[in-house]
Order: sequence, then C-alpha cells, then structure tokens
Amino acid sequence: MDEFELIDRYFARVGAARGDVVLGVGDDAALLRVPEGHELVACTDTLVDGRHFPRGTRGDDVGWRALAVNLSDIAAMGATPAWATLALTLPSVDEEWLEGFVSGFSQLALAHQVALVGGDTTKGPLTVSVQLLGYVPSGTALRRHGARVGDLVYVTGWPGDAAAGLALLEGRLAGQGASRGALEGKFRRPEPRVAFGARLRGVASACIDVSDGLAADLGRLAAASGVGAIIRAAELPLSRALFALAGEARAREFALGGGDDYELLFTVPPSARAALAAATGAAGAPACHCIGEIVAGRAVRVLGERGELPVPRGWDHFAT
Amino acid sequence: MDEFELIDRYFARVGAARGDVVLGVGDDAALLRVPEGHELVACTDTLVDGRHFPRGTRGDDVGWRALAVNLSDIAAMGATPAWATLALTLPSVDEEWLEGFVSGFSQLALAHQVALVGGDTTKGPLTVSVQLLGYVPSGTALRRHGARVGDLVYVTGWPGDAAAGLALLEGRLAGQGASRGALEGKFRRPEPRVAFGARLRGVASACIDVSDGLAADLGRLAAASGVGAIIRAAELPLSRALFALAGEARAREFALGGGDDYELLFTVPPSARAALAAATGAAGAPACHCIGEIVAGRAVRVLGERGELPVPRGWDHFAT
Repeated sequence: MDEFELIDRYFARVGAARGDVVLGVGDDAALLRVPEGHELVACTDTLVDGRHFPRGTRGDDVGWRALAVNLSDIAAMGATPAWATLALTLPSVDEEWLEGFVSGFSQLALAHQVALVGGDTTKGPLTVSVQLLGYVPSGTALRRHGARVGDLVYVTGWPGDAAAGLALLEGRLAGQGASRGALEGKFRRPEPRVAFGARLRGVASACIDVSDGLAADLGRLAAASGVGAIIRAAELPLSRALFALAGEARAREFALGGGDDYELLFTVPPSARAALAAATGAAGAPACHCIGEIVAGRAVRVLGERGELPVPRGWDHFAT
Repeated sequence: MDEFELIDRYFARVGAARGDVVLGVGDDAALLRVPEGHELVACTDTLVDGRHFPRGTRGDDVGWRALAVNLSDIAAMGATPAWATLALTLPSVDEEWLEGFVSGFSQLALAHQVALVGGDTTKGPLTVSVQLLGYVPSGTALRRHGARVGDLVYVTGWPGDAAAGLALLEGRLAGQGASRGALEGKFRRPEPRVAFGARLRGVASACIDVSDGLAADLGRLAAASGVGAIIRAAELPLSRALFALAGEARAREFALGGGDDYELLFTVPPSARAALAAATGAAGAPACHCIGEIVAGRAVRVLGERGELPVPRGWDHFAT
C-alpha cells in the first residue's frame, strides 16, 4: 500500500461534513470559506511519540489527543473550530493502529464539527502535527495580553488530574480503582473547553490554555499583559480523585506544575463578575474557580497558609 | 534555553510583515484577515530527515525546502500564499543549524511575502511540517479534475534536474563542474512557480505540482479527471546539464520518474492556447513545454520513437 492509497482509505472522510469546505482532501490544497465579518484563527501543535504521550499509547488516544491540544488553543482564543490538516509521520503502516487513530480523531472532530481537509503522510519516527483553523467575529478574540491589576484569575475544571493520570500510567504514582480510572481518563482524553471559551468573549480580559502547567502558563499570560499574579494555594480546585491518590501537598504540586490539563486559565475584571456568572451558569459549562488575582509587578507567586510556596517552572519541551 | 525562549528568539519575526496579520506568533493562535470575495487555501507538507532530504543537509536548505514544497502546492491551485505555521521537531537545540534554518525559510518567505504566524517547537527526531495558507478569488482555483480529452499537457521548467541533483549528492550519479552545480542547486533550492500558477487561472483546465515524478503526478491528475494521458518522450524538456551528465536515456528516466521537481504540470484546452501564450510571455514566466495530450481511458502512456516506454511508478513514501 502506498501513501496515496493510505490517505484515500483513511483520511478522505474524517470528521464532520461542512458546507464551507469547497474542496477537501485529495487535491494540492483545500479550499475553504471563512464567514464574512470574521477573522481566521490558525494554530498548530505537534505530538512526538514517547514525549507527549507514553510509547505504546493506543492509536485512538493519540488521534483524540492530537486534535484536542489544538482545539484547546482555539478555545483559548474564544474561537469556533472548523477545519484541520494533519501531518502524520509513521514508522510503518500498521492498519490497526491507523484505524484506531482515525477513530479517536474523528470522534472528537465530530463532537466539534471539525472537517479534516488535508494532510501529508510520511514515513519516519511517529510524530503527529495537526493544524487547526477556525474563526471568530472580528475584533472579539481572547488574547493573553489584556489582564489588568485587580482582575481575578479563574481556571476551569480540575488542574493536576491529567498530570496525575500520566504519573499513574508511568508508575510514578500508585493507586487503584475509580480514582485511578478517573485520573488516567483525564490524561488519555482531554476535553478542550471550546464552547466555554466562546462564552468568555466580552467577559475575560485575557485567556490562555493550560498545557505546560498552571503556574507556568499564568506566568506567560502575566508576562504578555505586563503584570504579576498571585495564586492562593487554598483556592486551588483539587479533585476528589487527585486528593485521594496523591494527598494534599502532592496534589497541589500536580495542579500547579503538572501540565496536560487543557483547561482555560483566564482573568476577569471585577466589573464582569455578573457576566461570568451567566457564562458559568449556562448548560454544559465546566466547573470554574477563582484561584487568585492580578497584581503589579512581573512575578507569579503562590501564597499558602503559612507564607509563599515554591512556583513550579512548568514543562520544558527540551529538557532531557 | 527552553522551548519558549527558542521560539521567541528565532521565530517571532520570520518572513514578511503583513497588514492582514491581526495577531502573529506568541499567543495560543494567530488571527488573520482573508480578503472578501476570496476562498481560503490550506495545505501542509512534512519533511523527514534522511527521507525527504539527505541526513546532514544544511539548515538553510531545509528551511527553504520546507516552505518551497508548500508554496508549490499553493502555486498548483493558482492561489496567493500569505501565512505559514511551522511545526519543528528537533533532536536538540543546535543554534547554528537553527539560524541557518530560519535564514533559508525567511529568504523564500520574503520573496513570496509570506508571514510566519505560529508554530510549535518540540524535541524529537528531525521533522519539519509547514502549513501554508493563502487565498484565491472565489471559484477560480485550479484543481486536478478539470482535464478533458483533447487538452494539451504542459510542464514548466526542466523536470528531472532535481532528481539528478539528489543522485549526485548521494553518489548514484557522477559528474563535476557547472552541470553538477546546476543540478544540485535545483535539488537544494527548488523555485516554486507561484506567480505563474496565478497566471494559469482561467487558462489551465487542471493543474498539479510535480513532487513525486512527472508520470506519477500526471497519473493523479488524469485519475482525478477520469481520463488518460499520453506523454511524447521526444517532447520532454531535458536540460543541457542533465543531458550532459546522465545521457539521453537516463535523463528521460529522471524527467519521468525522478520527483522533487516542484514544477507545474497542467492541461490546456486547444481553445486556450492564445491565453497560455500570453501567460508564458509575461516577464519572469518559466520555460513551459507541451509534452503530450489528454486521451480517453485511464492510463498514462509514454510514447517513444520506437513504441511505448515503461512508465515509472513515482516515489512511494512508504517503500523501504
């Protein structure tokens, strides 16, 4: 089977069918219609075998993850995802793995009405790059740089769960039963906050998705905005499963520094609290907690009950 | 140096500055303005070390190539390139190689007014995926599927030169002097036919870029159009350098099956020959030769002076 048969077989009909796809997989490029009055939103994220997921991860989990990490970037802009291209490098054609990959990718693509419109399949060490395109009403996208002193800092969901799930998979954390299953599930199948990101337009002053660790990503948001931030350790949302398996101190470490959460971290001016309440009260909205505030300066500090706690540095993609 | 410093240092200001980039590198996604009345054009191509270029290739040649192969896809649609995202996987941070990479990428990006608007840098085996975005007036894009029986088949430039250049670099072909330099240069620095592709809108009935070999890519165009094609071997343009180093028979093999040309292969109805003459007569237009015609059936056949010649199958990305 050559590359082209492979692409035809697996990728010609992946994800949603969309009326704004003039031409999809199978030509030199795709032709797409961006709605009038909207800006195009473009991002890309790569997964490397053994680095962004454990070696031996099932194809369906890799397919889901490759799209999820990009959907999370689109969510952090408050945008609507629409079209994806896929650059898939494979050591060999393993049909069972490929079918799993397509199934996991498609499942999430259908949930978010994303069409796969192009791709390139090459031979080499397992690497998956997805480029995701979407759109947002002109001038309304969320950015990292709008936080002001006095804004409140919020995070969706239960940060640290996914990092603890990975630690369980890699044997760095022990535990069994429902808690283990819940945490591993959070790592294996991150749920990007796409609908909620769109609801934050006009509410949040700045937004970023948590991929490298809550403290490190808050540091990026603060740096882009030219401000500092305080996280109150006591306000960090810790899931019951994380608390049960890791204990409070280690659970906080996972929550602050773990990465792989794909939650939204955002700031809200005090005047927009009512608007935020409306957004979080909408059907299907994720849990959302105020964990601190924006302050003058440049640093991110974590305040515990007995003083300042060390700030995890976040995941360095080039550390060995 | 962590990933983010690396991105900031090398990628924040790569390529052209464009007024339609609302937000570029440095947030979760880029924000871009597609002109009204246009369709968005999106493609992606991946280069794997040792597979799409020889191991040890200089960074500047890899950077140029990564953009060139994508520009060639945009050219084959008759579209205008605008914005790129880059997914770069590196085994380590080699600043000299990276500086070369950025320099080669930028040189070509500036020549075609492409802005780098986002990217993801990860650690792993050297792999480069570029996603290129552009636009085309709605309804005017060139596609693969419009060829009709009786249309003439044309190719730009001198197919086979790049494949012979690679053969020289890999020691599969011998030769020295200016011819060697010319052929190696055609492999190292392909010149995508972007301006000429745009001139083919309204002229060509179908178009594809030659990346896997002229005969194989003509086969794809023919299959998409539901037709067959004849290539007249005597009409194949063979460069003086290729002829000098490879001799006629092997030169034809390179031209028909070699790949890596990034020339445009297109069909023109006999009624559009005057329009084609206007396009090829424009300043800066590449050489352009009629090499055959579209016929009924499904096959691509190569006709020599003494009958039919074998048709090279094209490069299989998964062959070992």
